[in-house]
Amino acid sequence: MRKIEQEFLNLLKQQAAYQEATMLTYWDMRTKIPNNGVEQRSEVVGFLSEKQHQIETSDQMKYFIDELKDTTEDGVIQKAVEECEENYERNRKIPIAEYKDYVMLQSKSEAIWQEAREKDDFTLFQPYLEKLVDYNKRFAEYWGYKDNKYDALLHNFEPGVTTKTLDQVFPELRKSLSEMLTKINASNSKPDPSVMNGHFPKNDQEAFTIDVLNEMGYDFSSGRLDETIHPFAIALNMNDVRITTRYDENDFRMAVFGTIHEGGHALYEQNISQKLAGTPLATGTSMGIHESQSLFWENFISRSKAFWENHYKTFQSYAPKNFQKLPLDDFYRAINEVKPSLIRIEADELTYPLHIMIRYELENALINDEVSVGDLPGLWNEKMNEYLGITPPTNREGVLQDIHWAGGDFGYFPSYALGYMYAAQFHNTMNKEMDIHKLVSEGKFDPIRNWLTDHIHQYGKMKKPLEIIEDVTQEKLNPDYLVNYLHDKYGAIYNF
Amino acid sequence: MRKIEQEFLNLLKQQAAYQEATMLTYWDMRTKIPNNGVEQRSEVVGFLSEKQHQIETSDQMKYFIDELKDTTEDGVIQKAVEECEENYERNRKIPIAEYKDYVMLQSKSEAIWQEAREKDDFTLFQPYLEKLVDYNKRFAEYWGYKDNKYDALLHNFEPGVTTKTLDQVFPELRKSLSEMLTKINASNSKPDPSVMNGHFPKNDQEAFTIDVLNEMGYDFSSGRLDETIHPFAIALNMNDVRITTRYDENDFRMAVFGTIHEGGHALYEQNISQKLAGTPLATGTSMGIHESQSLFWENFISRSKAFWENHYKTFQSYAPKNFQKLPLDDFYRAINEVKPSLIRIEADELTYPLHIMIRYELENALINDEVSVGDLPGLWNEKMNEYLGITPPTNREGVLQDIHWAGGDFGYFPSYALGYMYAAQFHNTMNKEMDIHKLVSEGKFDPIRNWLTDHIHQYGKMKKPLEIIEDVTQEKLNPDYLVNYLHDKYGAIYNF
Repeated sequence: MRKIEQEFLNLLKQQAAYQEATMLTYWDMRTKIPNNGVEQRSEVVGFLSEKQHQIETSDQMKYFIDELKDTTEDGVIQKAVEECEENYERNRKIPIAEYKDYVMLQSKSEAIWQEAREKDDFTLFQPYLEKLVDYNKRFAEYWGYKDNKYDALLHNFEPGVTTKTLDQVFPELRKSLSEMLTKINASNSKPDPSVMNGHFPKNDQEAFTIDVLNEMGYDFSSGRLDETIHPFAIALNMNDVRITTRYDENDFRMAVFGTIHEGGHALYEQNISQKLAGTPLATGTSMGIHESQSLFWENFISRSKAFWENHYKTFQSYAPKNFQKLPLDDFYRAINEVKPSLIRIEADELTYPLHIMIRYELENALINDEVSVGDLPGLWNEKMNEYLGITPPTNREGVLQDIHWAGGDFGYFPSYALGYMYAAQFHNTMNKEMDIHKLVSEGKFDPIRNWLTDHIHQYGKMKKPLEIIEDVTQEKLNPDYLVNYLHDKYGAIYNF
Repeated sequence: MRKIEQEFLNLLKQQAAYQEATMLTYWDMRTKIPNNGVEQRSEVVGFLSEKQHQIETSDQMKYFIDELKDTTEDGVIQKAVEECEENYERNRKIPIAEYKDYVMLQSKSEAIWQEAREKDDFTLFQPYLEKLVDYNKRFAEYWGYKDNKYDALLHNFEPGVTTKTLDQVFPELRKSLSEMLTKINASNSKPDPSVMNGHFPKNDQEAFTIDVLNEMGYDFSSGRLDETIHPFAIALNMNDVRITTRYDENDFRMAVFGTIHEGGHALYEQNISQKLAGTPLATGTSMGIHESQSLFWENFISRSKAFWENHYKTFQSYAPKNFQKLPLDDFYRAINEVKPSLIRIEADELTYPLHIMIRYELENALINDEVSVGDLPGLWNEKMNEYLGITPPTNREGVLQDIHWAGGDFGYFPSYALGYMYAAQFHNTMNKEMDIHKLVSEGKFDPIRNWLTDHIHQYGKMKKPLEIIEDVTQEKLNPDYLVNYLHDKYGAIYNF
């Protein structure tokens, strides 16, 4: 390795050190920090982020990019230079004063959003949201785009995916989901969700989920599990990938499926190639691919019949009072009940993408000045009624439910639906190479995890999301796989 | 406030942000980090410390010191400038390359010490310890001193205290302790420690100690309690001061007295004046004063008869099987058993200072080339025999027991004994102003904590340790108070 390459890697290590310190402070703020510590800690996070940003946009960084871009023969360094160049270009395009004001607006808006949500008062949040939209429109102009201003924002979360792609796949997906939903509503064979009820002690839920995490291959010597109100996964580095969960003693689904979901995110980060350590490539390549990994484990594995064929006995032993007498089939059907609901994060597998489409359409229209912020509550409710047949009685259960916009995250939501489609497409390919149902019903997860590592995890950011999709599945994004999966699964449950 | 003063405070805030991030990483490394995360984390700690060191020794810092030193009219800024100047001068005196090598040697030596201790093989550690001693001798020369090279090292932990002071107070203290120890050994009225035995579930120990922490005034909304192998207190800032403890289900003393000890440290940090926030003055003024606060609560409060007159009933209710039938007096005598032992951190109140004197004498001789590292194991055992009448059968229980030297901490140990003497001297003054026994026996801790805050805590580093001693007690350090306290207490227990 040349001296300049070594120096470049040293600069990246500094960036990684700031990143790790920042991630640790976030983790601590969400899990352990005492109330009175929050205020000062916010300043620490702001300071560390600024330092990291300074490195990303430094002249030194620019020097390394220019010197190494066309000369390095090291594949990892080549990709790291590309990643740094993109960050450098995008960050430098935003005037520093504007960026700082925006960061302050973000943190203020999150607090105001919280208040507005509690008081169910959109007008409190509206002026902040208007400013956030304005900033994002300006940023989109700074960054540039080809056809649609919103593409510049999408790029932050799912590079390579544009509104053109979304406008191709979403309508088709929506049509199929609506058809299925109609059949489900009309079905005479509905699951009985009341069988889920009953007190299930936290410790027993925890013991069961830890069993499953271990089976999945989540490495507790490179991670840990804690409790939080909002479950998440966070990678300090590939050897320290933490997950959190929430226990509801009257509904085990939050903890069981939530932990497996976060475990899926964590497996991605834990299994990135050690060769990428200390570079910005050592993390998941996009929000969508990340979500494909969590949804793969949550939906395609842990909500499957095969999974419970193998796990139901153990599960029953943890909560004998509740489930000892409940037949497996009734249990399986109950955990897969489809029912339009108001809150995205509580939605079932089938209606979930509809929640995403509503947000995507509103965001796209906002950024392109087709609607104004003041129209949002009404439009939200109209669309909920149109897509899901229900209307939120309050804005708290409607337009105010998600934190994303308050944090300035426009362009993020589509990655949830993309991740779901990616997961189905990966699932289809994997199933050609191994009998997933058989493996899962025998509790053999290693071949599945290894496949995901070989095809996806190990690369980190060495490959862009659509590159992974095409390399792995030999075709472009195709929503049919998700539609087929849902049709097969819910056709069987609802008998259509 | 002038613009330059504001700029200076901003620089200090950056330093505080690095400090908080570093403290959080330490806390996490000792409490929560998964095994595989340690290696990368060590680099993060090293990086953050270096950044903080860069600010401390920066030209910008020098500029502020020079500009503000004789011009500021703000008392806090004046003291902060003095503190920064001292750090600047001391840090700049060490060549940067030498400092970096030393930091690397420290972290390597700790690992080697651990191995040497496990294998009970001093020769493994010896070459590292030799280098560490050499560095410290050189640093002492760089920093300068008046009479004794060791004073330059003492200054790091207890500014203002010199070997001259120690050589005045330690012999007197030793003589008194030895006389008492002789009487105790000859006593016919010995406590029966076997009454302490019996299984005491962790949860119950925890509940009792949390009760006591709350009574002491430890603020859980500005702190938290976790479990570790080596208990400690750590201040991220005055609003986030965390403590840890260890539970031994067969010996509650570790958790109960250990937690109260750490609680004493934490009260100090939690009650520093908010006016000092964000400056390097917002922490305890020295290791010795810090230890005076922890030992005050541990020994003078929680090991006192008065404390148990008030708390024994509650305590019994947490462990009825063990203590229901045990009379208070037998319990009190048992928790205060005096018995020479090999390990410092397990020593009783009376023999503890003797462990410190042994270390002080060896360190002083090492730094002044009166003994060599190779002589240490033999000298250690000779002194143990001379001071405590017992000889360690292994080096693991002798010269290899403490981590301090492996971390390069020479000059630290005396602060343990100084803290003990300070605590006794504070106790004596406080007792003139209020009836401590009466308050404690009624469970009224607020007047006690408030006194400590008014006289000590609030000042942070605004006052030097000996300044506090003299301001509070109106006299210089005087070991008689400790001797009198021990004589009264142990005379009563052992009937001499």
